[in-house]
Amino acid sequence: MEFTISSDKSQQILDISDSVKRLVAASGVEDGVCNVFVPHATAAITINENADPNVCLDILDALDALVPSGRWRHDRIDNNASAHIKASIIGPSESIPIKGGSLQLGTWQDIFLCDFDGPRERRVIVTIIKKV
Amino acid sequence: MEFTISSDKSQQILDISDSVKRLVAASGVEDGVCNVFVPHATAAITINENADPNVCLDILDALDALVPSGRWRHDRIDNNASAHIKASIIGPSESIPIKGGSLQLGTWQDIFLCDFDGPRERRVIVTIIKKV
Amino acid sequence: MEFTISSDKSQQILDISDSVKRLVAASGVEDGVCNVFVPHATAAITINENADPNVCLDILDALDALVPSGRWRHDRIDNNASAHIKASIIGPSESIPIKGGSLQLGTWQDIFLCDFDGPRERRVIVTIIKKV
Repeated sequence: MEFTISSDKSQQILDISDSVKRLVAASGVEDGVCNVFVPHATAAITINENADPNVCLDILDALDALVPSGRWRHDRIDNNASAHIKASIIGPSESIPIKGGSLQLGTWQDIFLCDFDGPRERRVIVTIIKKV
Repeated sequence: MEFTISSDKSQQILDISDSVKRLVAASGVEDGVCNVFVPHATAAITINENADPNVCLDILDALDALVPSGRWRHDRIDNNASAHIKASIIGPSESIPIKGGSLQLGTWQDIFLCDFDGPRERRVIVTIIKKV
Repeated sequence: MEFTISSDKSQQILDISDSVKRLVAASGVEDGVCNVFVPHATAAITINENADPNVCLDILDALDALVPSGRWRHDRIDNNASAHIKASIIGPSESIPIKGGSLQLGTWQDIFLCDFDGPRERRVIVTIIKKV
């Protein structure tokens, strides 16, 4: 099961919780784990606060300060080395427990795709493993 | 299956291995994967050295140096933006292999909850998937 | 299922995709999730670009700039604190979807072991969970 989502900025963190929740519901799985994976080397999956959108902007600012663009070997080939480095720091997947047919996210948690090299269309692969 | 654990400092890394191991043993699962997930947006799960407690203090110091508090948009709403950013860097879950009924942690590895916005009580959700 | 791999530098990122793919093929699992876990507290697993080897060198350089060696408490005991901190930032495992018997890595993605305290032999544990 997968879906696509498009960023419209060079760097953007997009809430994908509703799409993931729909796939969990469609699976009919009551108890298990949901793996959310982005098959791109300049994007990542994170889980963080859903209430104040500034949290996502702060994450992008912090990563920009930690990994400035334009100073890396790979920039000579494909001017996006900082996007690759950020992708490894955040990571390409998260695994979230499912109970009673629902993702066990906390009250303040949502699932986000981080696009560090947009704007682009990105694929997200969702795999639901039933507890047996 | 879940348990709670309380931090007593503003930032603290707490060893939760024994609680996770008890749930693995109680499950009776011989082979599979154990997902450890924290349903909070200012906490994280990590795996690191269990012998010298200074390693956990060093991790907190390093993250403080990388993500200083007090300079972010979200701080105007809820003075804990750095805790959110650190939570995304470390991540809310880890998945550990189970073999012969035991977590396949390395000799020097334990599982830790990182509370970046304590002191608080935190929930930890443990989901054990049996290999079939 | 596990294999070993040896680094020959103090810090090195090694492509382990072929070894993981062989174990996925040998398992006969058509649909599921593949967990790749390193049972060492100074190593990590990441997924990133396979085409330009400079990306991996850039990741090591970036982490060196973020977490300089020699200034941490644990260095007084076992001069490798920065390796431990980097291991927590990148994380000890990744979980990758399997579909049609193949890892669903993106075109540009491979799986890498990060050795932050080499040269050493490192174990990698691969656990394949079948979707039922």
